[in-house]
Amino acid sequence: MKNLKEEEIIELFTKNNKNFHFDDCEILPIKENHDSIVTCDSMVEDTHFKISWHKPEYLAKKLFQINLSDIVASGGKPLWCLLQIGFSYEKISSEYLIKFIKQFLKECNKYQCSLIGGDTFFSKQMVLSLTMGGFTNHYITRKSYPDTLIYVTGNVGLSLLGFKILSNQVQIPNNLKSIALKRHLAPEARVQWAQKIYPYAISMMDVSDGLFQDLKKMARISQYQFEIYLEKVPIHPKFKKYISPQDAFISGEEYELIFTTNKKINFSFATQIGKVMNHKINKNTSPIKLMYYGKEYFLKEFGFEHF
Amino acid sequence: MKNLKEEEIIELFTKNNKNFHFDDCEILPIKENHDSIVTCDSMVEDTHFKISWHKPEYLAKKLFQINLSDIVASGGKPLWCLLQIGFSYEKISSEYLIKFIKQFLKECNKYQCSLIGGDTFFSKQMVLSLTMGGFTNHYITRKSYPDTLIYVTGNVGLSLLGFKILSNQVQIPNNLKSIALKRHLAPEARVQWAQKIYPYAISMMDVSDGLFQDLKKMARISQYQFEIYLEKVPIHPKFKKYISPQDAFISGEEYELIFTTNKKINFSFATQIGKVMNHKINKNTSPIKLMYYGKEYFLKEFGFEHF
Repeated sequence: MKNLKEEEIIELFTKNNKNFHFDDCEILPIKENHDSIVTCDSMVEDTHFKISWHKPEYLAKKLFQINLSDIVASGGKPLWCLLQIGFSYEKISSEYLIKFIKQFLKECNKYQCSLIGGDTFFSKQMVLSLTMGGFTNHYITRKSYPDTLIYVTGNVGLSLLGFKILSNQVQIPNNLKSIALKRHLAPEARVQWAQKIYPYAISMMDVSDGLFQDLKKMARISQYQFEIYLEKVPIHPKFKKYISPQDAFISGEEYELIFTTNKKINFSFATQIGKVMNHKINKNTSPIKLMYYGKEYFLKEFGFEHF
Repeated sequence: MKNLKEEEIIELFTKNNKNFHFDDCEILPIKENHDSIVTCDSMVEDTHFKISWHKPEYLAKKLFQINLSDIVASGGKPLWCLLQIGFSYEKISSEYLIKFIKQFLKECNKYQCSLIGGDTFFSKQMVLSLTMGGFTNHYITRKSYPDTLIYVTGNVGLSLLGFKILSNQVQIPNNLKSIALKRHLAPEARVQWAQKIYPYAISMMDVSDGLFQDLKKMARISQYQFEIYLEKVPIHPKFKKYISPQDAFISGEEYELIFTTNKKINFSFATQIGKVMNHKINKNTSPIKLMYYGKEYFLKEFGFEHF
């Protein structure tokens, strides 16, 4: 198959998609009597993904889902998005590109999110950038208050395990492998769980840089110390042998939800991992006080730092 | 100076900027009784800029202005933006980053555009991605109608000349050099001119891929052939020796405005370069009929193609 030209790529977007206008700017769909919200998240080759690891369908799904996850963590539903694709035919084929775009449009349809515009350009390293807008009538921030309880949905650690498998750092039985790989390569935003949490949530954030880093951000914004019980951090029952509590605590790109509540809640999909303390953070106090079976614990690994 | 960490970079944005919230999503400022519009434009190292050519202040200005140019070309004013910066300390220093961010915030202030959120991440190749939102009560698209007149603002060709100077393809006298370099490195959106044009504009678009490519896009969306007089394409009077009409016609990243009107207008900053014809484009007709002193002219160079 020959290399698609820019206008042929744009045609893939516009065909069967009357919302895509390809103009200098697009008019935003606005939901009356709701707040309009927006997020953007980029994925750059070798930093966020590897072409050899990611099927185009997984890549499209991941790009969509990590942005959707931000919308969900803010208490919203998606409404529109703008997609930018920078790539080179030295790295990917037209077939790869077509599969990517088809899967991306499937995601848009599934979540009733209109792709209203976008752009393609040449880039040696593949660059994917998505802006997603949505609406909410109960916007949730990352800021919590003293004496609230800290929960996380599902389980964490599988994404880091998936990464270690892909980079040949560990080997695990085949029947478990696919579960870890799927979490790393094609994570899913916690849309249904979020709906159940919203009535109780004081604050919320999705786990993208790892529990440790993301809890620190929430604590700093809240201005109160978060006490976390490392032994409570939920690990998939089949993977306790392969994921240490420390790894679970620093594993990024999980896209589980961290949230705080005023009182205990009882959802099978959520685990209390700590509480917001009553004393303010200052320059000398750590935003996180990590406990392990009743004793203060100091992590050697400091989780994912971008630089 | 030591390398800034992610949270120190975010601090540069949040300090003196109460609009920047650093959450999963941001709430969009909405202007009552106006359409909300949005655009996004990325700049990738080696495709859109070179670090050795671009001072950080120029890079920040260019990123802001090319997005502002889209807002202006749609008949709008800017209101908010989201900035993503992917970089590596192997390529740029903390000083470069600080200067970039300071200049970017200056641009935001100058145009009353709130930086409401953003993100930084590691990337071997530097990647800058901006989403900009605005408002308008007279949204202008790229679509025109038969018998309308085609204008372009200012002059074109300087950006390509600037590129040729930077890549040592041509040499010109020093007193002219800085003009060409400035257009290429730090173009400016035509905000004031646009205000004067709005009452007359049927369609509008900014020149980012070059007149030839961008006029083709307008013609295709309009579905009618555009007749263009190559000899009318405006070239800066001091540069007629250095810029051929052909180069002026294909020079990208000019950020002048193309627009169409119902009748002749008389602005010193705008030149009529053609008109929209009365016959529809089909698969066999070229969207552009290029004329040069009354005879049909066929360009050998086909302007900027992304791939």
